[in-house]
Amino acid sequence: MPQIPGYTYGDPALPPSPVSLEELERLKACLLWTEEDDKALEQAGKVLEDQVEEVLDLWYGFVGSHPHLLHYFTDPQGNPIPDYLERVRRRFGQWILDTCFRPKDETWLRYQHEIGLRHHRTKKNQTDGVTSVPHIPLRYLISFIYPITATIKPFLTKKGHNPEEVERMYQAWFKAVVLQVALWSYPYTQPGDF
Amino acid sequence: MPQIPGYTYGDPALPPSPVSLEELERLKACLLWTEEDDKALEQAGKVLEDQVEEVLDLWYGFVGSHPHLLHYFTDPQGNPIPDYLERVRRRFGQWILDTCFRPKDETWLRYQHEIGLRHHRTKKNQTDGVTSVPHIPLRYLISFIYPITATIKPFLTKKGHNPEEVERMYQAWFKAVVLQVALWSYPYTQPGDF
Repeated sequence: MPQIPGYTYGDPALPPSPVSLEELERLKACLLWTEEDDKALEQAGKVLEDQVEEVLDLWYGFVGSHPHLLHYFTDPQGNPIPDYLERVRRRFGQWILDTCFRPKDETWLRYQHEIGLRHHRTKKNQTDGVTSVPHIPLRYLISFIYPITATIKPFLTKKGHNPEEVERMYQAWFKAVVLQVALWSYPYTQPGDF
Repeated sequence: MPQIPGYTYGDPALPPSPVSLEELERLKACLLWTEEDDKALEQAGKVLEDQVEEVLDLWYGFVGSHPHLLHYFTDPQGNPIPDYLERVRRRFGQWILDTCFRPKDETWLRYQHEIGLRHHRTKKNQTDGVTSVPHIPLRYLISFIYPITATIKPFLTKKGHNPEEVERMYQAWFKAVVLQVALWSYPYTQPGDF
């Protein structure tokens, strides 16, 4: 498998997550997360792994059709940066698989923190060495919970699972997306507010 | 209808929302919001209005069974404050109806901002004149998108609508919850990060 540009999951050089495993458990309790969800996510990963490009086509089509979203991939002249879009796309595809297959442990928490930093002005553009808009607002990260969750459902139905199984996978995906956005909000917050 | 304690929807003394109607439209675009959603929310309101107490029983049961959530309703000795719980419950019930029935206009935006401030250390406890934990962390506001969305579905099925209608109401509710949490995050963010 070719290397994914800028993908540093498990890199020990990443800064530690400010969120402890104990706090992660509390967040999972808020989300009504059970072991069933871990299993359902793994099942979702198997359903989605050969559909990743189609999912990304849909999501990129959505972003590309809204100038106020494509904006975050543009250069100072307002033109989209194709190489930046492509590098992020590669990582976004891997993110789908990581959401489903990676154990939710300290290594995972550390990379979630890194993803938050890469959306926030702290690290946006750095990974890809681009000169683009310096920051993605938190309100869009939170709002994206909806499309990233809702649009996945049709893909979950494609492998012949019954409606109950699809629903279980969908709910687990929904929880995993919300959990990650909660973690990504860290760098946006004022001290003590996260 | 008896007055709801601390409920100030439409009060011209409320500070203006930092979010413009134009920005609200952009957020709605992120959420794939259409006029169908406004209609579906209104329909959901009619389905939910005589079930509000049952919904609140469920949500309060959930919060009450998790010490790390009940915590935000406790006094300095760690005891839950019954009057505070009850006052918030009254507003929470009205919030269900407002989510469904209120037009998403400037008055609505203004009250969303007020709700954010009341969760944040800026105004927590003030409305109810209590001495409780000074702040609800943003990570819990975001995480609550899941239970507040997922648990509503069974209530939407109770009035004989077909599965497609229930699904439309459910998706509109999901969008409305995400939209509000995005708006509530404002006071938590560093300048320019929202």
